Amino acid sequence: MESIKQIPGGVCAPKGFKAAGIHCGIAKKVDKKDLALIFSEAPGSCAAVLTTNKVQAAPIRVTQNHLANGTAQAFLCNSGNANACTLDGDKVANQMCEIAARELNIPPEDVVVASTGVIGQALSIHPVDAGMKQLVRLLDRSGGEDAARAIMTTDLLKKEISVCFEIGGAECRMGAAAKGSGMINPNMATMLAFITTDTAISPQMLRAAISTVTQDTFNMVSVDGDTSTNDMAAVLANGMAANPLIQAPGEDYDSFLKALTYVCIYLARMIAKDGEGATKLLECSVKGAKDESSARVLAKSVISSNLVKAAMFGGDANWGRILCAMGYSGAQFDPQRVSLYFSSGAGTILVCKDGAGLPFTEERAAAILSEPEIELQLVLGDGEGEAVAWGCDLTYDYVKINGDYRS
Amino acid sequence: MESIKQIPGGVCAPKGFKAAGIHCGIAKKVDKKDLALIFSEAPGSCAAVLTTNKVQAAPIRVTQNHLANGTAQAFLCNSGNANACTLDGDKVANQMCEIAARELNIPPEDVVVASTGVIGQALSIHPVDAGMKQLVRLLDRSGGEDAARAIMTTDLLKKEISVCFEIGGAECRMGAAAKGSGMINPNMATMLAFITTDTAISPQMLRAAISTVTQDTFNMVSVDGDTSTNDMAAVLANGMAANPLIQAPGEDYDSFLKALTYVCIYLARMIAKDGEGATKLLECSVKGAKDESSARVLAKSVISSNLVKAAMFGGDANWGRILCAMGYSGAQFDPQRVSLYFSSGAGTILVCKDGAGLPFTEERAAAILSEPEIELQLVLGDGEGEAVAWGCDLTYDYVKINGDYRS
Repeated sequence: MESIKQIPGGVCAPKGFKAAGIHCGIAKKVDKKDLALIFSEAPGSCAAVLTTNKVQAAPIRVTQNHLANGTAQAFLCNSGNANACTLDGDKVANQMCEIAARELNIPPEDVVVASTGVIGQALSIHPVDAGMKQLVRLLDRSGGEDAARAIMTTDLLKKEISVCFEIGGAECRMGAAAKGSGMINPNMATMLAFITTDTAISPQMLRAAISTVTQDTFNMVSVDGDTSTNDMAAVLANGMAANPLIQAPGEDYDSFLKALTYVCIYLARMIAKDGEGATKLLECSVKGAKDESSARVLAKSVISSNLVKAAMFGGDANWGRILCAMGYSGAQFDPQRVSLYFSSGAGTILVCKDGAGLPFTEERAAAILSEPEIELQLVLGDGEGEAVAWGCDLTYDYVKINGDYRS
Repeated sequence: MESIKQIPGGVCAPKGFKAAGIHCGIAKKVDKKDLALIFSEAPGSCAAVLTTNKVQAAPIRVTQNHLANGTAQAFLCNSGNANACTLDGDKVANQMCEIAARELNIPPEDVVVASTGVIGQALSIHPVDAGMKQLVRLLDRSGGEDAARAIMTTDLLKKEISVCFEIGGAECRMGAAAKGSGMINPNMATMLAFITTDTAISPQMLRAAISTVTQDTFNMVSVDGDTSTNDMAAVLANGMAANPLIQAPGEDYDSFLKALTYVCIYLARMIAKDGEGATKLLECSVKGAKDESSARVLAKSVISSNLVKAAMFGGDANWGRILCAMGYSGAQFDPQRVSLYFSSGAGTILVCKDGAGLPFTEERAAAILSEPEIELQLVLGDGEGEAVAWGCDLTYDYVKINGDYRS
């Protein structure tokens, strides 16, 4: 993908975008930023994929309403409280939009709102209200990094990226900030990902793009199998790159899809790598599956298995657990035609061919599995379907972090 | 259930059953029994539910063939090797049956064979061959406890039970031995459960009984969400109690179902309690669901959530994770009509009513959640569906055990 280049700037890299993040008082620690604002000088096309969890956080419902017309001008997000399963959640989420809209001088319907943190505790509007003036003032002096930090919860790594690419002779840019570390098994959406771009693209095509790309990126990440009530991946395109407006499939749309895929794969890998307590990034690729959907189900099942994840933590080449996880995935495949490779920076070994184990030395396997990024490569004999999924190992620290998250 | 009484004897409690367990050399530790035999003096009706995993261990296939005619006379099971994903698996599983049949002087087709242990390593027939004479000799001097010990892998608790009950004026008995600690999320079957009874019942009715009961017992247990390649729950009924043969639904069949349910719930709870690394048994009951199937899906989803399990380990009343797990389960329910109680020997608290949190003191919640058996009681407002699921907490020790299972 030489046509896509990484550049600095995060969500502020595209033309016309500003961002800021502050501590307003939702998070207990005073040095933890807990309120992020990403703003475009002009309104633009906006689309999002939202959690499929039947228990939806209030901001998910409010954002869904605000995006009905396909346009927006700002992303507002707090950490420290999920604003889910409380009595006044919708009211508070709407107030957040109103307060931001007033300070930004835009309609409240053009604010996309998101929350992340503990479920079931009332979110007070007061800290948001008190901090908003400062947050908006900082838009001119702060930047993408502060916003990226303000949306983090148990994340250890700040997750941002920005790239430039060309569409119809115009240089376009795209930036993104994401968070996600636990309660991660996105379905139709990731934890939280905010993507900015100056590409000119219609709301319809933007919606198609984010749906398509999410399926092969965020939806292929699993940290713990728990799909959050607050998942959201939103993209805002303000058109300032002045490329010919993308309003139908074609070469320009494909270029845009490529850039969006690049950005989302980067974030998906970052989220998996930063899984709660993780010491290793796991990438499971499936080739030769009956079809793409089977390949996705198989890759996702392997990456989600607690037993596979614990074995990878221990550097134990217990490959039978991988075949076992394929077997209960519900996907069709021929177990007698499965080959499995373990691969990393330290080399590659074939441990299973045609569904049966091959001899290998434990030392060589242990060396390969002790690397920080491990690939589980499955080659089937059922067709042309391919997919990749990302996950992480299951460690003592995952249990520790989640045994006492609230305190 | 005053009509069902616990009695001693395990699988040997019913008339005409003998059992033994030895170390034949499959397990590395010389003091670990690794081969179990349960034998009925007369052939009887036999039925089993087997794993739904597409990657099936060889003994699953062989047993399926042997039970086509609905009769059997012996259960043979090794631990230490799953006999799955190897080239000669079917041959070895058949040889195991032949060797046992020769010594017992019965047809090989009347042997139900099972294996449990590591996947993907060749199982040698030699230790089984060398040990069989001794194993059969011990049938007259050994007993159910040795068999129950010989099928254990990472289990810490031996799992056996026996009961007596009455059918048509005749005293009937039922005994069982089970194993299961990790790779447990049975679907159509448990890990391994061998049930013996002297009740007279036709193969057809026995098959119906074990299928029905498994659905609400073994299939409602989850330790880690991983459905094994080797799951099997088998029941052998030799008719020696001389009750009127059960060959149709009715009062006698219902009495038998009750006894079988009693035994299977006992084993299901034991398996959950002995989940790898577990410190707490979790029981999730759902009432007021749309229907029984929705209730099952919801209870199972809660009990399977890593985040719920880790919170319970930490004694953290993070109830939002329970609503979250319900929400992504795929079952229909009204989130606004969910009430949730935490309950244990230390008391009961209502933490969520009509989908929103209630105030409670952390001290009281912590006291309730520090008990060894915790109930998560969900009351919905959608209908009459009820279900119960069993699981355990997610602990450091689960990760430790599974990070290095093979060594």
